[in-house]
Amino acid sequence: MSRFFSKKFAALTPYTPGEQPQDRKYIKLNTNESPFPPSPLAQRLAREQAGDLQLYSDPECRQLVRTAADRYGLDPEEFIFTNGSDDILGFAMMAFCDEDHPAVFPDITYGFYPVLAALHRIPYEEIPLKEDFTIRVEDYLGVGKTVLIANPNAPTGIPLPLADIEKIIASNPDNVVIIDEAYVDFGGESAMGLIRQYPNLLVTRTFSKARSLAGGRLGFGVGCKELIRDLNTLRFSTNPYNINRMTMMAGIGSLLDDDYYKDCCAKIVATRRKTEAALRQMGFEMTDSVANFLFVRHPSIGGRKLYEVLKEKGILVRHFETARLRDYNRISIGSEEEMKVLCETLAGILKEI
Amino acid sequence: MSRFFSKKFAALTPYTPGEQPQDRKYIKLNTNESPFPPSPLAQRLAREQAGDLQLYSDPECRQLVRTAADRYGLDPEEFIFTNGSDDILGFAMMAFCDEDHPAVFPDITYGFYPVLAALHRIPYEEIPLKEDFTIRVEDYLGVGKTVLIANPNAPTGIPLPLADIEKIIASNPDNVVIIDEAYVDFGGESAMGLIRQYPNLLVTRTFSKARSLAGGRLGFGVGCKELIRDLNTLRFSTNPYNINRMTMMAGIGSLLDDDYYKDCCAKIVATRRKTEAALRQMGFEMTDSVANFLFVRHPSIGGRKLYEVLKEKGILVRHFETARLRDYNRISIGSEEEMKVLCETLAGILKEI
Repeated sequence: MSRFFSKKFAALTPYTPGEQPQDRKYIKLNTNESPFPPSPLAQRLAREQAGDLQLYSDPECRQLVRTAADRYGLDPEEFIFTNGSDDILGFAMMAFCDEDHPAVFPDITYGFYPVLAALHRIPYEEIPLKEDFTIRVEDYLGVGKTVLIANPNAPTGIPLPLADIEKIIASNPDNVVIIDEAYVDFGGESAMGLIRQYPNLLVTRTFSKARSLAGGRLGFGVGCKELIRDLNTLRFSTNPYNINRMTMMAGIGSLLDDDYYKDCCAKIVATRRKTEAALRQMGFEMTDSVANFLFVRHPSIGGRKLYEVLKEKGILVRHFETARLRDYNRISIGSEEEMKVLCETLAGILKEI
Repeated sequence: MSRFFSKKFAALTPYTPGEQPQDRKYIKLNTNESPFPPSPLAQRLAREQAGDLQLYSDPECRQLVRTAADRYGLDPEEFIFTNGSDDILGFAMMAFCDEDHPAVFPDITYGFYPVLAALHRIPYEEIPLKEDFTIRVEDYLGVGKTVLIANPNAPTGIPLPLADIEKIIASNPDNVVIIDEAYVDFGGESAMGLIRQYPNLLVTRTFSKARSLAGGRLGFGVGCKELIRDLNTLRFSTNPYNINRMTMMAGIGSLLDDDYYKDCCAKIVATRRKTEAALRQMGFEMTDSVANFLFVRHPSIGGRKLYEVLKEKGILVRHFETARLRDYNRISIGSEEEMKVLCETLAGILKEI
């Protein structure tokens, strides 16, 4: 920290993204990337922009917003697009949390929420999940704070039924409820259909996982027009051209090529089920994940140890060294072949113990 | 504004980017875009990424940072890259301005500075430029605030000599001085060579103008390693994957293809000189711009009127409706052909008055 750094940030600990080592080739099951490339149309439309990059992108994202509105049966004014979904989460916390509206979220969830709260100096409360990593819905009923819930949750993959989500939204009419649906495409129930009923609901989504655009950076928020207008006030006060031309068109291509994306999701879910069965047979315990990852532990080997041995053998998974998570590892669902190698490698490791 | 929007932002007025009308085809001379496409290598490297977008980009931007360090003869740790240069300006203001370190900048400059200050609730002072739109250097000597200076300045294009910039930096050792060099490639003197001498200097640059990547979104900051580390703390607390894969490679291609970019700059400067001479002959008055735009007024026609007539005739220029600027228009330097059409159109308009 330089002597010029504002004292406001003296205690700020940035987010640690999943490691991206360059020393050797790994089977990368640590950042929940899709094993499938983006849709052919998404690729082609992105490529076509490369020769026009001297021109700014449309700051209002008109074509993208219209395409999304058509796809989801909503109005263009109910969408806001950002440079990945971390940015929409950041805008949402800036817009709807402050001293009078502290944030509240589970103690185990996407690790970026407390970082964003610290960055924007927002008071927040973390509510412990139950022993089995599920959310106690009652904890959030009439809680009187700005609620953030990842559904399905990370890194557990456990979903909350839409009826419970609706109870939480309905019981907090004076606070915004932010439902982060980064992983909803693999088996969760979306709350997007509730935005017209609840002016306090903001749903956030990403193109990184199910739409194979992690490296393109595209996320969005869906909510009533007034909430979206507030978020756009912040977006236009930060970086009006936040989406580049190539990503804008890749997003449009992905939305138009919707069957491709559904097909990828179905394959990933099938591979998840197969992997889950194989791991259970080896004695792994796990949460009931409906996401594109599994969250597993084994009674015979510690979480950290398993992570290290796998890394040594060329497979990267995600380990979180915190009290309630350290027995576990989060394993992204890669291709059929990658998961076969994973299962063989795990079987070998367990035999050697 | 919804009833949920934080009261902090009640008075926030977002930045208004140059208009991007879609009703008809215009000669667009209103957002300082380059008339040249990105370098062939930049295009090719960007295109090659389209099939790999399912993978996250490198959050540390290692290859890009190394390429930039080679190009500019500095260390990788002296660079930070962002999603356009508005983002590096935002991070810099967050990092180095607060109640104890208010910001100070000219009353006439890039319109985003006061917006960013308002967004982050940073107190700021605007110092009036002299009557001829030049900076009074003495106003900034030992000013004891975080200084922001666009060099050359916008929308005037007037440069400040490097010796004056250095005086300002040297006289404010306890505050960061941010030199925004968005337009330096067209004739200004860069302060990048001073970063090792002055730990309080941050230089910001963009790939949008001279490097023809406005629609790719790429900007960067250069400063001593400690300042860059502070800025990375904020970047990793906001959006660690802020640069997408395609733009990352476009940036690398542009830096490797440096002759192409120098050639584009030389052509734009030649066209600027030619246009300047033609406009002066028609009676236009203008600042001595060393940027890729001219800032002009004519004694026979008001600024707003000229903007409107040009728009009607299919040419977009940028008009600012504020007290000291309303007589003027900012005209980007487009292609030779576009500037020929501009000059003919202006001659026609003046004849009709």
